[in-house]
Amino acid sequence: MENILYQNDLVKVEIEPFEIPWIKIFAKEQIKEFSMCSSDLKGKIWQILDIIEKIMLQELNPTKINIASFGNYVPQVHFHIQARFEKDSYFPEPTWGKKQRDSNIDIKNLDSFYDKIKKNLEAIDE
Amino acid sequence: MENILYQNDLVKVEIEPFEIPWIKIFAKEQIKEFSMCSSDLKGKIWQILDIIEKIMLQELNPTKINIASFGNYVPQVHFHIQARFEKDSYFPEPTWGKKQRDSNIDIKNLDSFYDKIKKNLEAIDE
Repeated sequence: MENILYQNDLVKVEIEPFEIPWIKIFAKEQIKEFSMCSSDLKGKIWQILDIIEKIMLQELNPTKINIASFGNYVPQVHFHIQARFEKDSYFPEPTWGKKQRDSNIDIKNLDSFYDKIKKNLEAIDE
Repeated sequence: MENILYQNDLVKVEIEPFEIPWIKIFAKEQIKEFSMCSSDLKGKIWQILDIIEKIMLQELNPTKINIASFGNYVPQVHFHIQARFEKDSYFPEPTWGKKQRDSNIDIKNLDSFYDKIKKNLEAIDE
C-alpha cells in the first residue's frame, strides 16, 4: 500500500511501517515547533489527530492510543499516533522505550482501516 | 515549589520533577482517550500546551520541545510537555528511551519560568 494516506496544502499523513498501526502527520512547511505554526495549521493537525484516533478506536479496538511529537532527530513539526495493544512488543512502555517481549500482532482489518482513514481525511476538504 | 502550577474545572497542570523542565496537563474528568473529551476540554488542553510551549521557548532556549500523551500505565487523558536540551541525559532520544549520558543540566531561571507559566495560565480565566 502507498505510504501516503492523505495530503493537502498544509499537511501530509503517512503510514509508519511497524507491527502496530502507526500514522505520522507532518506539517509541509518547514517549522521547528508546534507553537510556531499558524492557527490554521495547528487546527488542521488537531482535527486530523482527532479523526485518526476515533477511527483507530472504532476499527482496531486498541488497548490505548499513544500520541507524540518529538522531532529531536528531525526538527520538523510532526505528530505520531499509534494504536497500542497489550501484547505488542513494547506495551506498556512507549515504542521509544524498552522492548518488553517478542510479539506477533495480527490485525485483520488493516486495509479497511487505512481506507477509512483516507476517506475521512479526504472528506475534510469537501 | 508546589507541584501544581494551575487548575480549573477541566484540567490540572503539574510539574514532573526531573532534570529537564517537564510539565503534565491532566484532564480532571476520568476519560481514557483524548478524542473522547468534550470540545471545550480538548481546546483547553491545546491552549495550555501552546502557552507552555511558547514560554519554554522564550525563557529556556531549549534545543527542542517534546510533547507526548501515552497513558499506557494510567489510562487517564494527560499530556507531557518537555524542554529538551542537547546535553540532557536522553537527547536525542525521548526521555522514555535509552539514556545517552550522565548529564548535569543547570537551568538558572527555573523559578521565574514557573512563575510565568502560572501567571499566563491564570490569565486565561480572566
